[in-house]
Amino acid sequence: MEVSRTLARFVVQSRYEAIPEAVRHEAARALLNWVGCAVSACRHETVERALAALKEFCGPPQATVLGRGERLDIMHAALMNGMSSHVFDFDDTHLKTVIHPSGPVASPLLALAEHRPVSGAEFVHAFVLGVEVECRIGGAVYPSHYDVGWHSTGTCGVFGAAAAAGKMLALDERQMTWALGIAATQASGLREMFGTMCKPYHPGNAARNGLAAALLAQKGFTSSERAIEAPRGFAHVLAAERNLDAITKGLGETFELASNSYKPFACGVVIHPIIDGCIRLRNEHNPAAELIESIALRVHPLVLELTGKQAPQTGLEGKFSVYHSAAAAIIHGAGGEAQYSDACVCDPRVVALRGRVTATVDPAVHEDETYVTITLKDGRKLEKHVAHALGSVDNPMSDADLEAKFRGLAEGILSSTETDRLIKLSRDVERLKDAGEVARASVPAGAAGNTRAKAS
Amino acid sequence: MEVSRTLARFVVQSRYEAIPEAVRHEAARALLNWVGCAVSACRHETVERALAALKEFCGPPQATVLGRGERLDIMHAALMNGMSSHVFDFDDTHLKTVIHPSGPVASPLLALAEHRPVSGAEFVHAFVLGVEVECRIGGAVYPSHYDVGWHSTGTCGVFGAAAAAGKMLALDERQMTWALGIAATQASGLREMFGTMCKPYHPGNAARNGLAAALLAQKGFTSSERAIEAPRGFAHVLAAERNLDAITKGLGETFELASNSYKPFACGVVIHPIIDGCIRLRNEHNPAAELIESIALRVHPLVLELTGKQAPQTGLEGKFSVYHSAAAAIIHGAGGEAQYSDACVCDPRVVALRGRVTATVDPAVHEDETYVTITLKDGRKLEKHVAHALGSVDNPMSDADLEAKFRGLAEGILSSTETDRLIKLSRDVERLKDAGEVARASVPAGAAGNTRAKAS
Repeated sequence: MEVSRTLARFVVQSRYEAIPEAVRHEAARALLNWVGCAVSACRHETVERALAALKEFCGPPQATVLGRGERLDIMHAALMNGMSSHVFDFDDTHLKTVIHPSGPVASPLLALAEHRPVSGAEFVHAFVLGVEVECRIGGAVYPSHYDVGWHSTGTCGVFGAAAAAGKMLALDERQMTWALGIAATQASGLREMFGTMCKPYHPGNAARNGLAAALLAQKGFTSSERAIEAPRGFAHVLAAERNLDAITKGLGETFELASNSYKPFACGVVIHPIIDGCIRLRNEHNPAAELIESIALRVHPLVLELTGKQAPQTGLEGKFSVYHSAAAAIIHGAGGEAQYSDACVCDPRVVALRGRVTATVDPAVHEDETYVTITLKDGRKLEKHVAHALGSVDNPMSDADLEAKFRGLAEGILSSTETDRLIKLSRDVERLKDAGEVARASVPAGAAGNTRAKAS
Repeated sequence: MEVSRTLARFVVQSRYEAIPEAVRHEAARALLNWVGCAVSACRHETVERALAALKEFCGPPQATVLGRGERLDIMHAALMNGMSSHVFDFDDTHLKTVIHPSGPVASPLLALAEHRPVSGAEFVHAFVLGVEVECRIGGAVYPSHYDVGWHSTGTCGVFGAAAAAGKMLALDERQMTWALGIAATQASGLREMFGTMCKPYHPGNAARNGLAAALLAQKGFTSSERAIEAPRGFAHVLAAERNLDAITKGLGETFELASNSYKPFACGVVIHPIIDGCIRLRNEHNPAAELIESIALRVHPLVLELTGKQAPQTGLEGKFSVYHSAAAAIIHGAGGEAQYSDACVCDPRVVALRGRVTATVDPAVHEDETYVTITLKDGRKLEKHVAHALGSVDNPMSDADLEAKFRGLAEGILSSTETDRLIKLSRDVERLKDAGEVARASVPAGAAGNTRAKAS
């Protein structure tokens, strides 16, 4: 069975017109979410330290580090943006494979688009194909590949980056096959790294290495043409079980991007129904924290298993506390990165309220479901049943939800005018003459090294 | 058991004085062999295509591409030199693990040494430690890791690169542990790539990625501190069986570099006894090819299994022909890359002689052994029993052999004066004030971009 070659041929022969409108729209939604995530973490110490370490080795200023003034060579820009977009674990998720698909694919594409301008339509086309490739390969080796310890956003993302960049570079079939091969032999990323800066390094690396794969293949750098399916190829070496059919079956008929999902809240999905319910109660009744006697949660068993921390001390620990998450949602009406800052986790008002939150496990409650009951000091009860949390398969975030999330992510980095413009450019990416505009619009006027700022 | 941390501590605390003199001498031998290999392939299309693809993204001219005029940022210099040194499969081999140890370790070190000058003694110290780390990790997962399809020169080389570069950067224990972790999560390289340009890409990538790991760790980029031994760490995810004790047992008491070996001939080791025997007969009797009636070889069974090609058409096919190898050795007195060129394989004199070579399998003959009998047209018989081929464990290449090999490798690229100087610098590397001199001395006066040439 020719897997690598078949996949390469599909990418090379794919025509823009054959991509369904709904899939192209999903690409714009994914782009908006990805840009927001990258901008929000652009000053995080993960990015600062990586820049401090690598800056003196970077090439010419070809592409933007999103949200910042620096421009780096496209390899390093792809690395930095792939990394920053995953720092807060707030990027998109392809639920069937737990791959975070946009980081490895959008990062090299946008960097390349700044260096060799392409239209928004070409950008969207390459993006859709890159996501298709990484998710199909991920699907073929899921779950054994993930279970043994591979972080598939890294190991499969590199294929997506190579395919997307290769499409934009107009590789021919043989070159595309090589690009997939050069990607395969760079596949890496261990789940052991979760909780360290190496986790976001994975999509960054995938982005950079996949981009290099496409550029090398373009110049005739050879590789195996059976890199995915051969006995010593990717699928056999990195997974105990595999279903290679899943890679080639129905290519062009279905699109993996259609089952992409977005997180409304900056923490693990198990807490999402609780935050969703608390925010809805707040929006409907606006109960002052001081007037709340207790908050009772009825939750799926995983909630306490994974996020049962009663007294978190840091922002990161807050992500593993359903108690903190509920209290912060009632007080702030949000579950963004700000609600998982050290300051918020230690805020006396939040600490006081979280002490009045109780959670009861109920095996009848589904993973995306919860029952929230607020008892006020005057005896009144406010109740909310969340059947499907916002962002789950049965209740996806709307375009308006994604824009609201974006505004939260950009806060403190972009002005509201800049935010509006970047939302518009991302949402309308398909109609742009020059897709690279999105990258340049992510840089605030005041950022050091911003040439727009300097010129004014 | 603390494996990563223990290994990191060993590297950080190691003192130059504790490295035995014989091991330091072996480092100089390995350096000489590695520089020769890199110089010999510096104009190979593998390097040309990689440079063509990546050059426009390179950073400042910080380090030398060995044998060439270009200077690249240290990351890309490490990539290119790690790659070129493995192109001809002529670099060194750590026999216990089949790792080619020098490429991934010397490449980042020499690039770094040009950017942040260090003494030859510091260079040798870091080199010895890098080889120690990659070979010990390789030993812990051998053979299951290799058998399943990993190219350990890539997957383990990245640890060696990180440790060596980290030593030169004077990382502290925690930073060194992170560097090993950042290396672990980049470990990659599939044996499926053998026979393509991706094979030499593996040590190049290992060199570059390990160097990045050390630089990132230096700036506080965090990683798992149990990256090798954790259940989702390197040894468990990339190998079915492992012996973690082998990594930490007797650290500092034995040195893996002591069991390094070098290839005298540019082909698979199974043909080495035959080439060795033919060259010795030629040197002793100098029989003209036209006067040879037949050449009869008695060989180990693997020789015909792996290299039984009777009528090779290309240089590469010649490497899989014991018949061609014997004929070329008699006519040219060598088994270098020149004897595996298309021209040599198609040379009518060589073709005619190879038709008179016969090989008989004898299970009593060892892998490093052979019996060669040349029958001359006048009826005389010339016989040679090679008990242990040159370059085998029991008959290592002498310093003079390595110098002769180097001269063959540098031929056509460096003048004899330049060759002499580079041999002297490599051999005496421990006494250099500035180890980077070795890199600069590899560039011929006429090379484009060579500043020495321009200045004169």
